[in-house]
Amino acid sequence: MRSATLIQKEFPVPLNAPIVADLDEKSLLALIFPRLGADTALLGPGDDAAVIAAPDSRTVISIDTLVQDADFRLLWPSGYRTTGFDVGWKCVAQNVSDIRAMGAVPTSLVVSLTLPGSTEVKWVEDLADGLAAGISALASEQCSVVGGDLGRGSQIVVTAAVTGDLEGRAPVLRSGARPGNVLAHIGALGLAAGGLAVLESSFDMSDPGGAGDQELAGLVMAQCRPRLPRTGAGPDAAAAGATAMLDVSDGLVRDAGRIARASGVGIDLDAGYLRTRAASLAPAAVRLGADPLSWVLGGGEDHGLLAAFPPDAVLPEGFVRIGAVHDGEGVTFGGQAPPATGWDHFAG
Amino acid sequence: MRSATLIQKEFPVPLNAPIVADLDEKSLLALIFPRLGADTALLGPGDDAAVIAAPDSRTVISIDTLVQDADFRLLWPSGYRTTGFDVGWKCVAQNVSDIRAMGAVPTSLVVSLTLPGSTEVKWVEDLADGLAAGISALASEQCSVVGGDLGRGSQIVVTAAVTGDLEGRAPVLRSGARPGNVLAHIGALGLAAGGLAVLESSFDMSDPGGAGDQELAGLVMAQCRPRLPRTGAGPDAAAAGATAMLDVSDGLVRDAGRIARASGVGIDLDAGYLRTRAASLAPAAVRLGADPLSWVLGGGEDHGLLAAFPPDAVLPEGFVRIGAVHDGEGVTFGGQAPPATGWDHFAG
Repeated sequence: MRSATLIQKEFPVPLNAPIVADLDEKSLLALIFPRLGADTALLGPGDDAAVIAAPDSRTVISIDTLVQDADFRLLWPSGYRTTGFDVGWKCVAQNVSDIRAMGAVPTSLVVSLTLPGSTEVKWVEDLADGLAAGISALASEQCSVVGGDLGRGSQIVVTAAVTGDLEGRAPVLRSGARPGNVLAHIGALGLAAGGLAVLESSFDMSDPGGAGDQELAGLVMAQCRPRLPRTGAGPDAAAAGATAMLDVSDGLVRDAGRIARASGVGIDLDAGYLRTRAASLAPAAVRLGADPLSWVLGGGEDHGLLAAFPPDAVLPEGFVRIGAVHDGEGVTFGGQAPPATGWDHFAG
Repeated sequence: MRSATLIQKEFPVPLNAPIVADLDEKSLLALIFPRLGADTALLGPGDDAAVIAAPDSRTVISIDTLVQDADFRLLWPSGYRTTGFDVGWKCVAQNVSDIRAMGAVPTSLVVSLTLPGSTEVKWVEDLADGLAAGISALASEQCSVVGGDLGRGSQIVVTAAVTGDLEGRAPVLRSGARPGNVLAHIGALGLAAGGLAVLESSFDMSDPGGAGDQELAGLVMAQCRPRLPRTGAGPDAAAAGATAMLDVSDGLVRDAGRIARASGVGIDLDAGYLRTRAASLAPAAVRLGADPLSWVLGGGEDHGLLAAFPPDAVLPEGFVRIGAVHDGEGVTFGGQAPPATGWDHFAG
């Protein structure tokens, strides 16, 4: 008999749909693993630990977490319901992006799921599908989920650790930018922030795949299922001589500031170019009463790559010059204080 | 002004003590990282990802999570308050144990912390101290925290991914046990289960370090800060020819069953020896109205190592014969059905 206290308002489960509390760990794993596709490890899931290849005798590693009600809501004010697929995809995107930002190629993920008993089993299956689709689209055929952990909690928490292969290259740090370098970027700017604004708005997004508002639905997808730059972008930047690189997860100004601080340099962002980028978001921003430039400069979660290159470097395909590195400190916008900065996802 | 709703009954924070909500991510990280000790990575914390050495061109990897109210309580019925140190130590213990069970040596951890805003900053500092102490005692000088992630949530969730080095050896799987093998074990059996029983009891454990009940306090420590077998136990077992190995995290019968199933064999546990082990716990168990044999056979979280060896193998120091592998299936106890099994930490 299902306890009424397990039913959350945010997560209406059809009356006879199985929920996580109905299953033991083994049964739930048996539903998840077949959805993850072939594993690419030397030793995949099922033992105490997995074994992955590290061809150049180094492994790049990072960890990142998505928490319900902090990083996503199951039900947004706009009526959009975050799917398991969204969370699985986004988990891959934000993790893989950190590996690419070192100039490396993703090789594996281990994933820990903390789930309330009231979570619909189908939502968890969708999450597995989102992980698989995200890996297929954003990582490579050499990457897979090689292990995991399941536990119970009062909120959905999805943590992945991701590994990568530098393929013999030196990692590209944040600290190598030098005065005279070109600052370049590849990927979306401001779309995920726009999507967050739509999700938090009163526009009806309860059926984003329907025939409704495609402009706003596109922004919602950029927030919930971010598309990363092409898979070769990070390694290509490393090969082209990038002196510093990171993925823009907390906003362009804030993340440029991290390169400036780590490298002991100043960075001036190209105001003309970034205003043009903002102009393309203006129609949607006007409808939301928002400033598109604040999305471009301060919005996080787009996971584009921001890199510094020597002045004579040929920028890899897709990278666009968006600023210059100079002797000094801090980040300016056309020589002035930036009109918007980024966000601290932890503060508050 | 601190919101009254942030104050949890389980977690009474002194009125002027700083809590997590008072700090931004950077400030909290600045408190945590100096406590973690020297990092041993090729590239440690501070960039998008870390880079660790993989000397034999392979990396062992696993992930494990501790969730408040599922894996530990901040305040137990006995009055014991789980410290940050406990959680940090246990996080290391359960992760490192998975690496050792492959016959590998731990090389790094990446740690993700999800924290309620009401968490006292000192508790988080204690957690960092527990991570450092756990690594120092249970891993090696070649292991450290090389990266992490901080986020906010309604419960404390601590996830670590851990890596290991096989030092050129083949990993010891669960699937290689053969009829005629000796089943051997090293480590505690039933202590952590006894500790859980004490924590859930009405014995007063509010001051376990005091002059009070040392017998019960010892069990509490085995639950909250498990001591693992000596650091060389896993690699030594691999070198001695172990055909199968795992760490006993969910109970001896349940975990022996995993070797039996993966290897396609039957396992008979030595009833005489295990009754002797249970007898040493009887004084405490009697006081709690519990059956010590159920602790020994069904209790999890001791993180000893259970391994099968060829009949002519010399058991490495500390390993004790506790059973035999035979043609068949399942787990028996002196030829009979076991009087207790393990637990599914996910079900319920």
